[in-house]
Amino acid sequence: MALILPPRLSTGAFDRAMRAFAGAVGAEWVLATAEDRKTYLDAYALGDGMNHVSGGAVAPASAEEVAAIVRLANEHKVPLWPVARGKNLGYGGAAPVMPGTVVLDLGRMKRIIEVDPKYGYCVLEPGVGFYDLYNHLRDNKIPLWMSVPGNGWGSVIGNALERGLGYTPYGDHASQLCGMEVVLPSGELMRTGQGAMGNNKAWHHYHHGFGPSWDQAIVQSNFGVVTKAGFWLMPEPEMTAQVRLELPKPDDIGWAIDILRELRLSNVIEHSFVFGNYLHDASIPSQRDEWYRGPGAIPDEVAEKIMARYGIGWWGCTLSLFGHEGVVKAREQILRNAIEPRLGKALEFREWRRGDPIEKSAAGRPSAVALQIVNWMGGRGGHIGFSPVMPSDGKLALEQFHRMKQRFAEYGFDYYTSFTMGVRHINNVNIIIYNRDDAEMVERARKLFGVLIADSKASGYGEYRTHIDFMDPVAATFDYNSGVMGRFNEQVKDAIDPNGILAPGKNGIWPKAYRGAKP
Amino acid sequence: MALILPPRLSTGAFDRAMRAFAGAVGAEWVLATAEDRKTYLDAYALGDGMNHVSGGAVAPASAEEVAAIVRLANEHKVPLWPVARGKNLGYGGAAPVMPGTVVLDLGRMKRIIEVDPKYGYCVLEPGVGFYDLYNHLRDNKIPLWMSVPGNGWGSVIGNALERGLGYTPYGDHASQLCGMEVVLPSGELMRTGQGAMGNNKAWHHYHHGFGPSWDQAIVQSNFGVVTKAGFWLMPEPEMTAQVRLELPKPDDIGWAIDILRELRLSNVIEHSFVFGNYLHDASIPSQRDEWYRGPGAIPDEVAEKIMARYGIGWWGCTLSLFGHEGVVKAREQILRNAIEPRLGKALEFREWRRGDPIEKSAAGRPSAVALQIVNWMGGRGGHIGFSPVMPSDGKLALEQFHRMKQRFAEYGFDYYTSFTMGVRHINNVNIIIYNRDDAEMVERARKLFGVLIADSKASGYGEYRTHIDFMDPVAATFDYNSGVMGRFNEQVKDAIDPNGILAPGKNGIWPKAYRGAKP
Repeated sequence: MALILPPRLSTGAFDRAMRAFAGAVGAEWVLATAEDRKTYLDAYALGDGMNHVSGGAVAPASAEEVAAIVRLANEHKVPLWPVARGKNLGYGGAAPVMPGTVVLDLGRMKRIIEVDPKYGYCVLEPGVGFYDLYNHLRDNKIPLWMSVPGNGWGSVIGNALERGLGYTPYGDHASQLCGMEVVLPSGELMRTGQGAMGNNKAWHHYHHGFGPSWDQAIVQSNFGVVTKAGFWLMPEPEMTAQVRLELPKPDDIGWAIDILRELRLSNVIEHSFVFGNYLHDASIPSQRDEWYRGPGAIPDEVAEKIMARYGIGWWGCTLSLFGHEGVVKAREQILRNAIEPRLGKALEFREWRRGDPIEKSAAGRPSAVALQIVNWMGGRGGHIGFSPVMPSDGKLALEQFHRMKQRFAEYGFDYYTSFTMGVRHINNVNIIIYNRDDAEMVERARKLFGVLIADSKASGYGEYRTHIDFMDPVAATFDYNSGVMGRFNEQVKDAIDPNGILAPGKNGIWPKAYRGAKP
Repeated sequence: MALILPPRLSTGAFDRAMRAFAGAVGAEWVLATAEDRKTYLDAYALGDGMNHVSGGAVAPASAEEVAAIVRLANEHKVPLWPVARGKNLGYGGAAPVMPGTVVLDLGRMKRIIEVDPKYGYCVLEPGVGFYDLYNHLRDNKIPLWMSVPGNGWGSVIGNALERGLGYTPYGDHASQLCGMEVVLPSGELMRTGQGAMGNNKAWHHYHHGFGPSWDQAIVQSNFGVVTKAGFWLMPEPEMTAQVRLELPKPDDIGWAIDILRELRLSNVIEHSFVFGNYLHDASIPSQRDEWYRGPGAIPDEVAEKIMARYGIGWWGCTLSLFGHEGVVKAREQILRNAIEPRLGKALEFREWRRGDPIEKSAAGRPSAVALQIVNWMGGRGGHIGFSPVMPSDGKLALEQFHRMKQRFAEYGFDYYTSFTMGVRHINNVNIIIYNRDDAEMVERARKLFGVLIADSKASGYGEYRTHIDFMDPVAATFDYNSGVMGRFNEQVKDAIDPNGILAPGKNGIWPKAYRGAKP
């Protein structure tokens, strides 16, 4: 595997940079062999992933080492791609947008610096994974709950910095960030929010400082490397109740979303929850071949068989209630009143009191089971997520569903989708699952993705997050006033990162030093 | 009243600029007489306010006119100070930091562009006041509730842009902003969040776009002029219950905060609420003279008399419960169980069902009654707020209370304070009330304010917002790593506003063009 260098850098200059990095972090933490570069490829790439091959990686152990690397990167003009644990699966994993970029792997920085049960927060380095934090809370009997994404392999902070989603009342992960330590592109260490005051006691208590608040502008940006962050956790509730809805017909999602939006707005349901289609469940215990070997998307009659086998509906959705017993019981009744008449049967709640062994999905216990879906098509499986944001409206969701399903069918893919209900919005995550060993299928997946971007743009929806292959085209859909937002982002980027060394091309933001390398 | 010009501008050049502004908005909307300049002085200034006298004002009627003014300001090198309705009372009103800055008065832009009862949001221009929106909701029978600050004279959007506070579950006003239209310092019109996509349907549904999220970095900044914004409103609940707590002793606030923090964290109490001291209530219906004519702060025995007369405690606090009847009733019981044993008496709840005429403080109806406090000392009254943020801890609050009370006494001021409970933090708003006609008293107030900044910095607390007189010293307390946050803010400022025309000095951010004018 040949070394691809960043633009305008000679092999000699690159080697000198890597040696300088070694001087800062120790030679064993500069990972520059062909095998190393392979490790940082996107494991689910549409193709061989070489269009995003890194120039290697460097793995600092502390904020000070990150700062040293960033200063050296400026000196040697070597671009860096920060990753927390590199598990941004479905969106590019650890791989950089621009080939030759050196991965700044923060996986060694995995200190749980603080967990505060009184106020419900923790302070984490980016290398701390969901399992690490879960084990820490459990082992120390700390009565705080996490919110975890569908796949819990990744970094808590890394996931939040990509605006990942979970399914408890703390499921909007970016909103739980409170006070960051950031290495700026200059190599300076900055603290955001109240932490901008050296001795401040409320750094992880209140989101803002004095003047502009930077946390949410650092999220999904290439403006700095987050080396630790405050993150809010949910106090363990006195009681939890959970109910599973199975909706038999595809069009049931329309009325269900409208009813549940009301309950979200009135805060009867306090958490984001997922309507997943039948494939959401069926792709975990089974593979496609067991059901259907024909060409094209699975026919609807096969879908019926799958649903019958697992006793699931076209859509499934788990709702949870949290709180004091009287509140939970009252809310169960509100849900019954709202949903049972449409569903035509009684809701069955499962209940847990504090201390009971509890279902993982209710309590924010991490799991990697969801990753099984990549085996659906056989071969070396991969998936890519297409994730537009839309209003929480039943009719719009139904239209979106039919449009996407039709497109998946046109391109011969089984339609895997989920609608995650916020309060006023939905994150609609559509997953294309493919066999990486089938070049024709991979090419079809890529074409489908492009069509989905265009369809959603035409419908007035933008992605909340995307794969490294598609960051430029998705950024281009944000086109108000000739793309002024993109120009504004790049104006800020150029001012704070004149050498363009941090994550060139991240979410469509190209520093001027590498604007020519934009594909 | 002589005209003070912005730095480096001749009278002729300034006049040419004002004529150019008149060409853009019409001569009647350029307000450049001595009388006009007086109108924009801080009505509560510590002194005559001439240290912040404007060079006049210009009042555009639309975003396009704002953009035209901003472009002309660049051309003529005239700094602008945008105000929504100019009612930032206690923090400087409509007056700019730097003398000679021209007020960009957005008060004419008062369109309620949209109110969406289904999703619970509105889209407002900055000139829309709390009363305007309230009347609109009432007249059109729209079942959405506002959250209003103590004094409801101001602009809904302007207040949110200063991180103002209200007392319903939507009381963190900045967090309700969702999707802005902003005139950049270049004069370009930008839309934030999903609105960065021209035809996006979820602009006011989801806080973020793709990449960095700018709303909260525009809040409290001088990075742009917000010409409209989405703002979330609360659906009218089925039922509301309210209970008033009166705590007889000063030290009662310690245990009360600790108990109520638990109830905030577990979401039994869903709104921010205020512990106000007795003066909070007594300064509205009465003046100091009626109670005490001696020198120095009111003695504790006089305080006892005041409390006895009004039947209030040292601290008062109103808690509200919102939601479906079963939930509200369950929460009433949780509150009883938590509070009655400490209080030693039964809580008395008032209850309203949807449709009942309801207490304004529960339902977010605006009021200007709180402004009465400025008459406390007699003469031309004024007040200034000192507002640090701290963790929501009883012991820390008690220490802060004793420290502040002692300082107010040292400087001969009656101690007016409130602790507004968020979940993990408290906004502690201390108000110094003075007689503007008493120069000695004003000077004492200014000295006290400086001491409070230093005391709070020493305790590890920073202000969430401050008066124009104190923006530089408060910004200086955010001193981590030699004030890197301030340098970062100014780096961004210089990149996007090379002529420094927008709000120089706002919250301590000085563009390089005027850095020399920093006092």
